[in-house]
Amino acid sequence: MLNIPERKAILPGSIQQVAIVGGTHGNELIGVYLVKKFQQFPDLIQRQSLDCITLLANPGAIAANRRYLDRDLNRCFGDEDLANLELVGYEDKRAKELAAQFKPEQQPTIDLLIDLHSTTANMGLTLILDSADPVTMQLAAYLTTVHPTVQVYYSANSGRQQDALRSIAKSGLGIEVGSVAQGTLRADLFVQMEVLVVSILNYLEQFNQGKILAFEKQLTLYRYLEAIDYPRDQSGEISGMIHPQLQFKDYQPLYPGEPMFLMFDGTVVPYTGNATVYPVFVNEAAYYEKNIALCLTEKQTVVI
Amino acid sequence: MLNIPERKAILPGSIQQVAIVGGTHGNELIGVYLVKKFQQFPDLIQRQSLDCITLLANPGAIAANRRYLDRDLNRCFGDEDLANLELVGYEDKRAKELAAQFKPEQQPTIDLLIDLHSTTANMGLTLILDSADPVTMQLAAYLTTVHPTVQVYYSANSGRQQDALRSIAKSGLGIEVGSVAQGTLRADLFVQMEVLVVSILNYLEQFNQGKILAFEKQLTLYRYLEAIDYPRDQSGEISGMIHPQLQFKDYQPLYPGEPMFLMFDGTVVPYTGNATVYPVFVNEAAYYEKNIALCLTEKQTVVI
Repeated sequence: MLNIPERKAILPGSIQQVAIVGGTHGNELIGVYLVKKFQQFPDLIQRQSLDCITLLANPGAIAANRRYLDRDLNRCFGDEDLANLELVGYEDKRAKELAAQFKPEQQPTIDLLIDLHSTTANMGLTLILDSADPVTMQLAAYLTTVHPTVQVYYSANSGRQQDALRSIAKSGLGIEVGSVAQGTLRADLFVQMEVLVVSILNYLEQFNQGKILAFEKQLTLYRYLEAIDYPRDQSGEISGMIHPQLQFKDYQPLYPGEPMFLMFDGTVVPYTGNATVYPVFVNEAAYYEKNIALCLTEKQTVVI
Repeated sequence: MLNIPERKAILPGSIQQVAIVGGTHGNELIGVYLVKKFQQFPDLIQRQSLDCITLLANPGAIAANRRYLDRDLNRCFGDEDLANLELVGYEDKRAKELAAQFKPEQQPTIDLLIDLHSTTANMGLTLILDSADPVTMQLAAYLTTVHPTVQVYYSANSGRQQDALRSIAKSGLGIEVGSVAQGTLRADLFVQMEVLVVSILNYLEQFNQGKILAFEKQLTLYRYLEAIDYPRDQSGEISGMIHPQLQFKDYQPLYPGEPMFLMFDGTVVPYTGNATVYPVFVNEAAYYEKNIALCLTEKQTVVI
């Protein structure tokens, strides 16, 4: 069960310092170019009660059109790694820089950090919540009301609460949009992500002005259970692919016995779990090297 | 008009030496893993009259899961570049190696080289012909009869006849499959590409055994006209994206005045040509750096 602090739907204080971040992964272009658009047209993100900054998190990787140069920036913000002076790769140095800037002496200065990602999986518009933090839970409840196609992925067990860039803020929200190939834009998804960010800022503005009252709402979450690797041969080489019946079926129920992988030799590997699960990050390009073919989630409805 | 040598549908001699090549671009995984499959199960590509070899063209890029390490291998086979001893990057050295192996003293040893590619554009299964070479024209006519969804892209004006890897063989055939994100497999497209390669080998076997007679056939080609760059601002930065109405619409007619780009500021840039054209490589990830948003083709029907 989720550990939700209280059932009072009250946000702690106002949300004034907001950061909109793109390019944490340099080849996820929708976030990169949306941040550049906001930098070019700052009126779009100005609100009376907000101090909203924009940031391109990994300029080296953006310039190289790669996810990262030395290692995944979005895994560099664990306390131990930030304190480890022997980690001097490009992203480790960049993480220390950003942590010093936005979390000086362990005190976060950003109330809400919105980190814009994209994925080759068919995850549509997804909010990623790393914890049961009431700020983002309430925000997700609001956004899924206004935009019913938005899905909520609850990643608390995945490690991102500890090591993601958004972990350096008081509250962090990831947004995934897909499917889109790395190194490309997709205009329809770009527009959808822009609309979602504008909705967030409008919500915060109304909240800060006391116009959003406490409310009780059901929120459907897809809670991370485990990551599944590709089938591999004895040398560690991939020996199969996501089965066509599972490809692009993120958030659709996967029942025990249904096909999961199509092996190169033509045989089918089914899902052998006992419970119905809901896959996400199905065939995400960046996860091949992380030994993740898909992530399994369970669907939960919570009242917040 | 196409310069087709003769209208006699007769292939010059038998086609015995065949090379199936994957990984010319290291992050186009379908070709890479299809070649690995053929290496693991060589019976799939053995035919009595054929000497069929397999090749992973760019092992360095495959290991790095990148298109290339120093520069695009599929642009390294021009005669001048091959003769230029100052070009010593990874791909230039690899190109010289492959040319020495397969085209010693300017004499090609491979009768037909089939180069397996994939694209983020929605090009389905596409045969790429770089010239009006009768071997590949006849083959394309046969394959489009057997597999009616296969499209034929005639690239003769694009430069690939001179600098592509397949240019080192007597006859070269490119196969594109998409849309698929770089660094990912897609099982349905993998299977389709495998079926197509098997069809090619079956055709060659029958042809070599005299079982395929000369035939006259109409062949629909999409002939390369020009490449169109993204709209850019004064600093050279992209200022728009493929319009949603054009995204994934490869091989569909684009009429004068129809939307081509959606600018980040929300305005629409239409196609301003006078003639109806047929776009291909729409939003191909690897072409952003080549300043190509899409390629325009004209549709032609030829009798071969």
